[in-house]
Amino acid sequence: MSVELIPSIGRLRERLSSARRAGVTIGLVPTMGALHEGHGCLVEQAAGECGLVVVSIFVNPIQFNQAEDFARYPRTIEADLAFCAERGAQIVFAPSAEEMYPAPLRSFVEVTRLTDHLCGPFRPGHFRGVATIVMKLLQIVQPDRAYFGEKDAQQLAVIRRMVSDLNVPVEILGVPTVREPDGLAMSSRNRLLNAEERRIATTLYRALQAAERAVAAGVTDAEAVREAALSMLREQPQIRVEYLEVVEPDEMQPVGRIDGPVRVAAAVWVGSTRLIDNILSMPPH
Amino acid sequence: MSVELIPSIGRLRERLSSARRAGVTIGLVPTMGALHEGHGCLVEQAAGECGLVVVSIFVNPIQFNQAEDFARYPRTIEADLAFCAERGAQIVFAPSAEEMYPAPLRSFVEVTRLTDHLCGPFRPGHFRGVATIVMKLLQIVQPDRAYFGEKDAQQLAVIRRMVSDLNVPVEILGVPTVREPDGLAMSSRNRLLNAEERRIATTLYRALQAAERAVAAGVTDAEAVREAALSMLREQPQIRVEYLEVVEPDEMQPVGRIDGPVRVAAAVWVGSTRLIDNILSMPPH
Repeated sequence: MSVELIPSIGRLRERLSSARRAGVTIGLVPTMGALHEGHGCLVEQAAGECGLVVVSIFVNPIQFNQAEDFARYPRTIEADLAFCAERGAQIVFAPSAEEMYPAPLRSFVEVTRLTDHLCGPFRPGHFRGVATIVMKLLQIVQPDRAYFGEKDAQQLAVIRRMVSDLNVPVEILGVPTVREPDGLAMSSRNRLLNAEERRIATTLYRALQAAERAVAAGVTDAEAVREAALSMLREQPQIRVEYLEVVEPDEMQPVGRIDGPVRVAAAVWVGSTRLIDNILSMPPH
Repeated sequence: MSVELIPSIGRLRERLSSARRAGVTIGLVPTMGALHEGHGCLVEQAAGECGLVVVSIFVNPIQFNQAEDFARYPRTIEADLAFCAERGAQIVFAPSAEEMYPAPLRSFVEVTRLTDHLCGPFRPGHFRGVATIVMKLLQIVQPDRAYFGEKDAQQLAVIRRMVSDLNVPVEILGVPTVREPDGLAMSSRNRLLNAEERRIATTLYRALQAAERAVAAGVTDAEAVREAALSMLREQPQIRVEYLEVVEPDEMQPVGRIDGPVRVAAAVWVGSTRLIDNILSMPPH
């Protein structure tokens, strides 16, 4: 299988409009590259459901709130192309920053409320950058379906809400988080960890599982659920917790008393690498 | 000629998708109703260039910064329908507020910089509301072309920039302002004026023409150009000037020295009615 690399918006639109006229279902998998098995599942699901799969690879400067994080972000385009071909994508759209932002950007999509907690306060402008680039990609590709990982649960909620609020004609699909055998959620940032950090990083998922078990066991006090996870994270002095919250899954608002499904979500720093993860947790019925 | 009234997003999309599949060019004329000759020109131009013309009629609550202005805004749907049929539109999309905003709106399109002057500071949230509703309409209708009046020059600039920044696949067309025989720009708000106010309102255009003449005569000091217009407006004590600015036409930034095309734009209050107008003015070459 081979994949077509298209860097230009104009050429991509041309290529897609003939497919669209022929009635082919178009799937979009927006990524920042450095593809891993998590992306692999997105592409495979898209390939199973759509006649034509476009993977976009663009390390979007406007969603990084720290220049260093943007500079450090892994870039592996050659491997990514082979990976996309193997997983059944037909097109990789990999534009330059100039192609995506030819003039100073004055227009932004802002999603309020859903961005007030979790990553929102710690990454000012991040979700505005995400919503804006995803809107641009949806307008460029005009896919029937677009695929996002549940690992970035707040991002997924923001995109679902944007699409619903602004009537964007696309179906948004969330795909379950893919994990390493030891439970660490797949992430392009994992390759920034050294061996020691990589070992310690597994604590994040185990802590979230402890919180999930508490919810499943009928603990209704969100503080007690948080504490179940936080106490495990505190045992690892090399981990710094940025946040660990229990939120309702639609608008991502913190809950005090748990009486329905909640998402337990956290961001931690291991050395100089920031990792996020979450588990949708169900109280007993 | 007859026009089809469609209040539902779902039915509209169904109706349009068959036209789209058949290769018909779709034109959109977004309005708030209370249609007048200015809208008539938009619809006629659209009908001349497109196989199917959709006029949307929706008094958009989120672009009104004053509840009273929203309440007072004229609503004349029966007359509007006949008007649209006469001018060659095939569909009037007139949704309810519940159809357009079924859930609390959390997602907004913000256009920065272009909204810093003119109406922007005087109508907080207005352009956010305009950009957001126009984005929604563009996503619902997915027109090939959308038509806007140059009377709302800042709105037109904002929409052009939004479409360009966010890669919305539509061509935006600006249509020249239509005026009453005495020069007053057509506006749905004109019918809120009493006879005395209506007479006085003509001063606005005459003042802008005075500014335009100054620019055309080679006056390069924007303050002197403003003064040419303001001195005429000051002669009418019943007119209160909200702003009168000389701006460059793309990003709507005030200029000090005129060395290219400028837009002279003003908002004035006549009694309790707010009127806006503008003239694109060319310095001598």
